[in-house]
Amino acid sequence: MRILSFDPGFGRTGWGALERSGTRFAVLDYGLIETSNGMSHGERLQEIYNQVEHMIGQLEPDLVAMEKLIFGKSRSTAAGVFQAQGVILAAAGKHRLEVLELGPKQIKLALTGSGNADKKSVEMMVRRILGIQTEIRPDDTADALAIGIAGAMQQQWNQVQLQN
Amino acid sequence: MRILSFDPGFGRTGWGALERSGTRFAVLDYGLIETSNGMSHGERLQEIYNQVEHMIGQLEPDLVAMEKLIFGKSRSTAAGVFQAQGVILAAAGKHRLEVLELGPKQIKLALTGSGNADKKSVEMMVRRILGIQTEIRPDDTADALAIGIAGAMQQQWNQVQLQN
Repeated sequence: MRILSFDPGFGRTGWGALERSGTRFAVLDYGLIETSNGMSHGERLQEIYNQVEHMIGQLEPDLVAMEKLIFGKSRSTAAGVFQAQGVILAAAGKHRLEVLELGPKQIKLALTGSGNADKKSVEMMVRRILGIQTEIRPDDTADALAIGIAGAMQQQWNQVQLQN
Repeated sequence: MRILSFDPGFGRTGWGALERSGTRFAVLDYGLIETSNGMSHGERLQEIYNQVEHMIGQLEPDLVAMEKLIFGKSRSTAAGVFQAQGVILAAAGKHRLEVLELGPKQIKLALTGSGNADKKSVEMMVRRILGIQTEIRPDDTADALAIGIAGAMQQQWNQVQLQN
C-alpha cells in the first residue's frame, strides 16, 4: 500500500511518500513544497494545489493522510493552514481519494506510544521505522513522514475493526 | 469594472456578479454553489474549485471579493469555511487575480453606514443599489452581492488613496 502524507502550511508544506507491506515500511521520497511570499495569496495556494495534484497523479497513492489542525494553537497562522488543507483536500478529491486527518496527539501516540512525546522522540521513531540513518531535514518533512506512518496504522486499525 | 464576489461556505457558497460604471452598479447574475453531503470532503472542495474557476474564465472579472472569516464565531464550521476560502483563492490565483477580503463589519458599514446593521437593512440596500424589486433569495446570494458592492467601493477608495 502506498501512502502520500502532508504536513500542511501556507508557506511550507512537508510531504512524504511511503510504501507499506504488512508491518514493514519503506520510504519512497520526501520533500517540501515552498511558496514564495512574492506571490499573491491565491497564487501560493494554486501552487500548492498544482504540486499536490501532480504528485498524486505520479505516485498513485492508495491513501492520503494529513495533519488536522487543532484550534486555538496560533490564530495568526490558522487561516493559512486551513486554506492549505483546503487545496490538498481538493486535489485528492479530484482523484477521488479519501484523506485521513490525524491530530497531533494521535500521531505521537501511534509513533511512540505516548500522546505527549516530544518532536525529537517522534523523529527518532520515524528514522527507526524507515531505516533512515541521517537526520531528516527540514522538520516539516520528518513530520510528514510521521503523519504517513500514523495514517497507515490508523487505516489498518479501521479495517480490523470493520472485520470484527 | 466587473466584480465577482463570494460568501464562502463548505456546503453553500453564494456568489454574485456585478458591473460598476462610475458610481452605478448593475447586477449581471447571482446564484449558489451547493455541494452534496454524499460526496467526500475533498470532492466537495474540488467541486467548489471547479465551479469558481469556470466562472472566472467565463466572466473575466477585474476584481474578486469574498467575506473574511472572523475567528471565534463558530468553531465547528470554521475549518470548512477556511477550506472553501482556500479553493476560491487558488482558483483566482490560477487566473492571476487578487482577492479582496472584507470583514462583516466592513461590509455592513460600506452598504448602510453602520457596522452594526442587521441582515434585513443590508439586503434592502443591496436591492436599492442594484434596482432589484423582489427579495433576493437565498440569503447567501444577497450576502455575496453585498460583498461585491463593498469590495468595489473598497477598491475605489484604495485607488483614491494611492493617488494622494
